[in-house]
Amino acid sequence: MAASRDEVVERIAAFTIETQSWGYVSTGTRFKVFNTPGTPRTVHEKVDDAALVHSLTGVTPTVALHIPWDRTDYAALAKYAAEQGVRIGSISPNLFQDDDYHHGSFTNPDPAIRRKAVEASVECVGIMRETGSTQMSMWVADGTNYPGQGDFRRRRHWLLESLREVYQALDPDMSMLLEYKLFEPGFYHTDIADWGQSLLLCQELGDRAKVLVDLGHHALGVNIEHIVATLLDRDRLGGFDLNGKRYADDDLMVGSTNPYELFLIMAEIAAAANDDNAVVAGGAREVLFKIDQCAMVEEKLPAMLRSVEACQIAYAKALLIDREALLRAQTAGDVVGANSIVDSAFQTDVRPLLARARERLGARTDPLRAYLDSEAPARRAAERVGTPAGW
Amino acid sequence: MAASRDEVVERIAAFTIETQSWGYVSTGTRFKVFNTPGTPRTVHEKVDDAALVHSLTGVTPTVALHIPWDRTDYAALAKYAAEQGVRIGSISPNLFQDDDYHHGSFTNPDPAIRRKAVEASVECVGIMRETGSTQMSMWVADGTNYPGQGDFRRRRHWLLESLREVYQALDPDMSMLLEYKLFEPGFYHTDIADWGQSLLLCQELGDRAKVLVDLGHHALGVNIEHIVATLLDRDRLGGFDLNGKRYADDDLMVGSTNPYELFLIMAEIAAAANDDNAVVAGGAREVLFKIDQCAMVEEKLPAMLRSVEACQIAYAKALLIDREALLRAQTAGDVVGANSIVDSAFQTDVRPLLARARERLGARTDPLRAYLDSEAPARRAAERVGTPAGW
Amino acid sequence: MAASRDEVVERIAAFTIETQSWGYVSTGTRFKVFNTPGTPRTVHEKVDDAALVHSLTGVTPTVALHIPWDRTDYAALAKYAAEQGVRIGSISPNLFQDDDYHHGSFTNPDPAIRRKAVEASVECVGIMRETGSTQMSMWVADGTNYPGQGDFRRRRHWLLESLREVYQALDPDMSMLLEYKLFEPGFYHTDIADWGQSLLLCQELGDRAKVLVDLGHHALGVNIEHIVATLLDRDRLGGFDLNGKRYADDDLMVGSTNPYELFLIMAEIAAAANDDNAVVAGGAREVLFKIDQCAMVEEKLPAMLRSVEACQIAYAKALLIDREALLRAQTAGDVVGANSIVDSAFQTDVRPLLARARERLGARTDPLRAYLDSEAPARRAAERVGTPAGW
Amino acid sequence: MAASRDEVVERIAAFTIETQSWGYVSTGTRFKVFNTPGTPRTVHEKVDDAALVHSLTGVTPTVALHIPWDRTDYAALAKYAAEQGVRIGSISPNLFQDDDYHHGSFTNPDPAIRRKAVEASVECVGIMRETGSTQMSMWVADGTNYPGQGDFRRRRHWLLESLREVYQALDPDMSMLLEYKLFEPGFYHTDIADWGQSLLLCQELGDRAKVLVDLGHHALGVNIEHIVATLLDRDRLGGFDLNGKRYADDDLMVGSTNPYELFLIMAEIAAAANDDNAVVAGGAREVLFKIDQCAMVEEKLPAMLRSVEACQIAYAKALLIDREALLRAQTAGDVVGANSIVDSAFQTDVRPLLARARERLGARTDPLRAYLDSEAPARRAAERVGTPAGW
Repeated sequence: MAASRDEVVERIAAFTIETQSWGYVSTGTRFKVFNTPGTPRTVHEKVDDAALVHSLTGVTPTVALHIPWDRTDYAALAKYAAEQGVRIGSISPNLFQDDDYHHGSFTNPDPAIRRKAVEASVECVGIMRETGSTQMSMWVADGTNYPGQGDFRRRRHWLLESLREVYQALDPDMSMLLEYKLFEPGFYHTDIADWGQSLLLCQELGDRAKVLVDLGHHALGVNIEHIVATLLDRDRLGGFDLNGKRYADDDLMVGSTNPYELFLIMAEIAAAANDDNAVVAGGAREVLFKIDQCAMVEEKLPAMLRSVEACQIAYAKALLIDREALLRAQTAGDVVGANSIVDSAFQTDVRPLLARARERLGARTDPLRAYLDSEAPARRAAERVGTPAGW
Repeated sequence: MAASRDEVVERIAAFTIETQSWGYVSTGTRFKVFNTPGTPRTVHEKVDDAALVHSLTGVTPTVALHIPWDRTDYAALAKYAAEQGVRIGSISPNLFQDDDYHHGSFTNPDPAIRRKAVEASVECVGIMRETGSTQMSMWVADGTNYPGQGDFRRRRHWLLESLREVYQALDPDMSMLLEYKLFEPGFYHTDIADWGQSLLLCQELGDRAKVLVDLGHHALGVNIEHIVATLLDRDRLGGFDLNGKRYADDDLMVGSTNPYELFLIMAEIAAAANDDNAVVAGGAREVLFKIDQCAMVEEKLPAMLRSVEACQIAYAKALLIDREALLRAQTAGDVVGANSIVDSAFQTDVRPLLARARERLGARTDPLRAYLDSEAPARRAAERVGTPAGW
Repeated sequence: MAASRDEVVERIAAFTIETQSWGYVSTGTRFKVFNTPGTPRTVHEKVDDAALVHSLTGVTPTVALHIPWDRTDYAALAKYAAEQGVRIGSISPNLFQDDDYHHGSFTNPDPAIRRKAVEASVECVGIMRETGSTQMSMWVADGTNYPGQGDFRRRRHWLLESLREVYQALDPDMSMLLEYKLFEPGFYHTDIADWGQSLLLCQELGDRAKVLVDLGHHALGVNIEHIVATLLDRDRLGGFDLNGKRYADDDLMVGSTNPYELFLIMAEIAAAANDDNAVVAGGAREVLFKIDQCAMVEEKLPAMLRSVEACQIAYAKALLIDREALLRAQTAGDVVGANSIVDSAFQTDVRPLLARARERLGARTDPLRAYLDSEAPARRAAERVGTPAGW
Repeated sequence: MAASRDEVVERIAAFTIETQSWGYVSTGTRFKVFNTPGTPRTVHEKVDDAALVHSLTGVTPTVALHIPWDRTDYAALAKYAAEQGVRIGSISPNLFQDDDYHHGSFTNPDPAIRRKAVEASVECVGIMRETGSTQMSMWVADGTNYPGQGDFRRRRHWLLESLREVYQALDPDMSMLLEYKLFEPGFYHTDIADWGQSLLLCQELGDRAKVLVDLGHHALGVNIEHIVATLLDRDRLGGFDLNGKRYADDDLMVGSTNPYELFLIMAEIAAAANDDNAVVAGGAREVLFKIDQCAMVEEKLPAMLRSVEACQIAYAKALLIDREALLRAQTAGDVVGANSIVDSAFQTDVRPLLARARERLGARTDPLRAYLDSEAPARRAAERVGTPAGW
C-alpha cells in the first residue's frame, strides 16, 4: 500500500533538509565567477539567508559550515543562528585551498603537510563541540593528474592513517561522513574515487564512519539508487550532498537535470524508512540530506528554494509508490506492471500535498513566490554592498 | 631501479595467461554472428586451439571452461588436454542461458530457480575436482531493465545466500573469483555492478572469495588501475578477464583500444610483484590473467595470439619502469619527472625482449607469423566442416 | 501562453505514432533471447498486434516494416493491414544480417557486396510503392572494430555513392530518413556515428534526405533536444526512433529511463509546431515518430502500450509550457523563473487530458488496463503456438 | 609503404606546433590555482617562454594570444617576438570573462551585449593585422545551465548573425577556426556543442571558416579520428587545440592520458598529408596544431616541452604506418593483419628519430633534459618575483 495522502503530508513535514553556507555565496567555474545582487558578505549573512529559507519552507532547520571559509567565533555564531531560528549542521574541513595542499593533504608525501591536514580536521571537532554539530562531512580532494605522479597504495596508507586520527578525535555522539568523487580536482585519479573506496575506508575506521553520496560525483550511467540501497542494507549510508549534474560535478539545482533519478533515489529512502522508521527522522540510521549546489548564473535564494522543493517533490512521489502492489508484481515477474506502479507515483502532481505540509509547518504555501513578492530581494541587494563572499 | 633486460625476459617467460574455450568459437552481436573458417565444433577442438596457442607462445598453459557450453566427460577432457600439452583452468557456471533464468538466477523471486542456479554452480565444483581446476570464475548476469522490476535489497539477500552456499561447497584449495559488470544484460541495474558490490559480497563470503576485474565492465572514465591497486592492497584481487573495450562490454582484442591503460594496469601488478613475488607466479596472492574476448569479425586464432602478445608487451613495459627514480620524483613533487619515467618505459620497444623470452620457452619468435605461415589455418578450415560451436 | 487544456486534448488526439513490426517479436541480447507467450509468428500476426495497439490507443495508425524480416506479398499485406485498420508506414532495408555483410554493406571493399546492398535498398522502393509507404528509414550498420580495419575516407566515398543511388531511386513523394549511431555493431567506429555525419550525407543527397534521431544512439551526456532544435532549424529533422536507454542502445520502453529528457525533446517539437503547424501533423516538415524498442524480458504488447502513452504524456506536458512567460523570463535573464516555467509543465499530471483525447478518438481510456482485462492476452497465447518470430 | 626513416626525420623537422601564451601562466580549477616559481607576469615574459621552448625544440615558431589577457602594444609585441625568434600565431577573442557576459556573448538576449562581443572580435582582426596573424581561433563559451533558460533556435540565429559579422571583417588571407565543446561553462547545453554544430555554422559563414578540434571537448567514447578524417574529406578541418583529457575538459599535457588516441588522430593527418602534401606544411589545407593545456600542478615549461614531444612522437609513429600493406589488408578483409600494421608502427620507439630531427633543426637532442640542466629554471624563478599572470 502506498502511504495515504495524510501520511505523505505528515512525512513531508517531518523531512528536513540542510542547506549549506557556501550555497549562498558567489561561485562559478574556473573561467569566471559572476556575482548577483544581495550575495552575503559574512558568515552571519549566510546564516541569515539560511534562516530566511527555513522561515519560508519550514524544513531547513540546519546550515552546514565549511572551515575556514566560515571562520568566526563559533559559539557566538551558534547563538546567533539560534536567534535567527536555525542551528549549525554538519561541519566540513577545507583541505584543498591552502598553497600547502599543492601536492595533497592527507596523502601528501610530506608528513608535515599531512599533520597540518589532520590538525585542521581535528580543529573542526572542536568547532562541532562549540556549535552542537554531530556530523563531520569530509571531502578529501586529493588525487593526481598524471600516471606516475603518485603511488596509489602508499597514498592509501597515508590516507587511512590520517583519517583514523581524525576519526578517533570525534566524540562518541559524532560521526564522520566520508565523501567520494570520480574526478576533479584530480583528473587522472582521486584517492576516494567511488563508494567502494569510501566504504572500505569507513570499515577500517569504525561504525560511526559512513559514506556520503554526492549526486554529482559518479561516472556517467552509474545507478546511484542501487548504491544507496546497498549502503542502507549495510548500514553505511551517512547522507547526501544534493545537487544536479549532467556531465561532471556540475553542482546545479537539485533535480534540475534528471528529476526521475532523484525520485528513484528517494524511493530507496522511502522504502527503508518504511521498514525502519529511523532512517529519515533521526536515530542510529539517520541520513543527512544536505544541499550542495553552486548558483553560478542564477539568483541564489531562488535556486535554494527550488532545490528544497525538488527534494520534497521527489520524496512525496516516492512515498506514493504502492509497495504492496509492487511486491506482488515483482514476485509475479510482471515487469511492465511493476514499472507502471512506480511510474504512476511519479506522474502524480504532489504540489498540493506540499502546500498542505507547509501549511502544517506554518511556512509559506509557495516559498519561491513568497520570497519574490517580499521586500527581501530588494533589501538584501541594498544592504549587502561590497565584496560578496565566495569560496 | 627498473628490472634489467634479463630480468624482464625472465619474468615475461614466467608470466602465464589463460585462454578461454569460448574465445575460439563463433560469437557476435545481438544483430548477427559471423562465422570464420576453422572454428571449433566441439570442446575437444577448442582445447586443440588452446594447445596450439600454447605451443606457439609458450605462455598459455591453461584453458578456461564454461559449463554447460563445454559439457562432456570432464575427466577424459582433462586427460585429453594434458596430451595436447595444456591443463584445464578456471571453470565458469553459465547462469543466463536457460529459459528458467528469464527473471534471474541467484536473485530470482522463485526459490526453485535460485536452487537450480546454486546446484548448477555446485556441479561445477565437481567438475573442478575432476579437472584439477582450483578457480571458479563466477559471473552473475542478474539485473533488471526497469525501475521497480526488482527490489535491490531483497535481491541482494538472495544473492548472498546463494553465493554462500556455492562458496561453502568449494574445497579448501579452491577459490571463487566474483565478477562485476556495469550493465548488460541488465540495462537498468545489475546486481553486482561494480567492484564495491563484488568486494562487499566477497567480504561476506570469506577469504577465498576475490574480485575478478573484467576490463570491459566499467563505466566510461573509471580508473581501473586504481581499483586494481586497492584490491591488491586489501588482498582481494582474484584476477582479470582481459579484453579491449571502447564503449560498452565490447570484448575486443586485449589492448586494442587503449594499450596505455593496459600498461598502467600491468604497472600495478608489476609494482606489487616487486614487493611480493607471489602475485604473478602463484601462491596465496596468485592473480588469474584470463583472456575473455569475442572475435566477432576477425579470425579467432590470430586474434588470440595478438591478445596474448598485447598482455606481454604491457607487462614487459611495466617491468621497465624505474621504480626507484619514480619514488624519488613522487617524493619531490616532481610531477612531470614522475610521469616521464612512466612514459619512458611505455615508449620502449619491447618486442625484442619478447622474442628472447619466447626463445627461452622454446616457443616461436613471432607466433602470429608462424601460425599464418604454417599449414594450420588451411588444415583447421578443411577439417572443421559443419556447425561451428557458439555460445 | 501555454496551450489550453482543450487544445492539448486536441493536439494529443492528432499526434500519431508509428509502431514497428519488430517491436512485437522476440528479441534479446547477445546472451539470450527470452520468449513470451503470444509472440507473433508471421508478419500478419505482427500487423494484428499493431492493429490491436491502434484500436486501444487510437493514435498508432501505421506500422513500420523491416525487409527481409517482413518479406511477403506486400500488396496483399497492405490490403490485410487496411482491413485490420492500419497502414504500412516506413520501410527499412536490413543491411546487416547476411553473411555477405561480414565486412560491411555500403562500405564493403568488395564492389559486388556494395551493389547487393544498393539493390536490396532499391527493392525497398518497390515495396514502398506497393504498400503506399513514403518514408525509407535507413540504418547503415557499417563500422569497424579495430584501428586500421578500414579507411575512414574511402569508406565515406563508397557510402555516399551507394546512398546516392538509393536516393535517386526514390519517387518524388518519398523521403529517406538517415539514422546515425555511436556504436554497435561496430565497436571502434561506425560510418554514420552522429547527427553531424548523417546531416553531411543528407546535404550531399538532396532535400528529401533527412536525419533520423534514435534516442538510444548518442554518447552519454549528449543533449538530444539541442540536436533536434538544430535539425528543425535547418529543416533536416526526418523523425525519431523512440526508445529508452541508460548506457548503450538499450532499446527499452520509451521514456522509461529518463522521462524528463523525453519531455524536453517533445518541448522542441511543440515549440516548432507552434511556429509552424506542419511539423507534427504532416506536410513538408512532417516528422516521423516511430517506436523502436525491444521487449527483452517484459510482455511485448503491454510494453508497446506503455511506450505510446509515454510519448503522449511527454508531448502533452510539453504543450503545457507557457511559452510567452518563458520568453519573458529568458529575455529578462531570469534563470530560475524560466526553468520553473518548464518544470511546472512537467509536474502537471496530464493523464486526465490523455483520457479525454482517447475518448474523443473512440479509443480506450486506459489502453493497458483494457488490454490486460480483455481476452486478448490469453487468446494470443493460445493461438500462437510454435516458433515465434524474431530478428 | 611507410615513410623511410629519413623521410620521417624530415617530416618531423617540418612539423610545427603552436604554443599558447596562456599555457605558460598560472591556472587551475574552480577550487584553487597553485602557482609555480618562474611563472610569467607579463605578455612579454610569456613570449620569452615561448621563444625558449622554440629554441629548445626547434618546432614551435609561433605563439597564440588571447585578448584581452594579452592586451599590449601589439605591433611592438610582434617586433619583440621576432627579436626572440618567434612570431605571433593565432588570435583568440575572450568572450567569457566580462561581467557583461553573465548571460552570454553572441547569444545574449541583450543586443548591446551581442554588439560588444562582435566588436571585441572585430578588434582582434585589427590585432591580427598588426601582428601578422592569419588565424582567428574562436571559442564561443555560450550555453545554459538549465532547461528553459534559453531558446536553442533563437540563440542559434543570434550566434550566426554575430559570427557572420566577424567573419566578414576578416581579410581575404585570414581564416576563422570555430571551436566546439560539449560542456563547461554551460552545463545543460552549449551553443556549439559538437563538430556538427560547428560545421553547420562554418558552412553558413564561408570557405575560410573551418572547424577547430579541441581534443578535450568531446563526449566520452567519441571517435575523434573519425571526425578528423571526415573534416579533412570535406576540407573543413581548421586545426587542433591539443591537450589531454580523461573525463571532461581536463586540459592536461598532450597525449598524457591516451597516447594511442593521439597517434590515431595523427595517422589521419599523415594519411591526408600523403595524398596532399599541403595539409601539414601550409597552403589552402593548412591545419593548425596549437597546444591548449593548463599546467595545474606541474611545472609549466617542462609540461610544454613534454607536450611538444608527445605530438612529435605520435606524428612520427603515424608516418611509420605501412600504408600500402594496410590497404592490401583492408581490401582482403584481413582485420587482424590491418590492425597489426597500425600497431607495429605504434610499438616502434621513435625517440631516436626525434633526436635526429632536432639535430637537423639545430635544437637540443633532449629539450626537457637540456632545460632542466640549464640555468633557465633558477633564473626565471629569481627574476619573476611578484604576481604571476593568470587567466
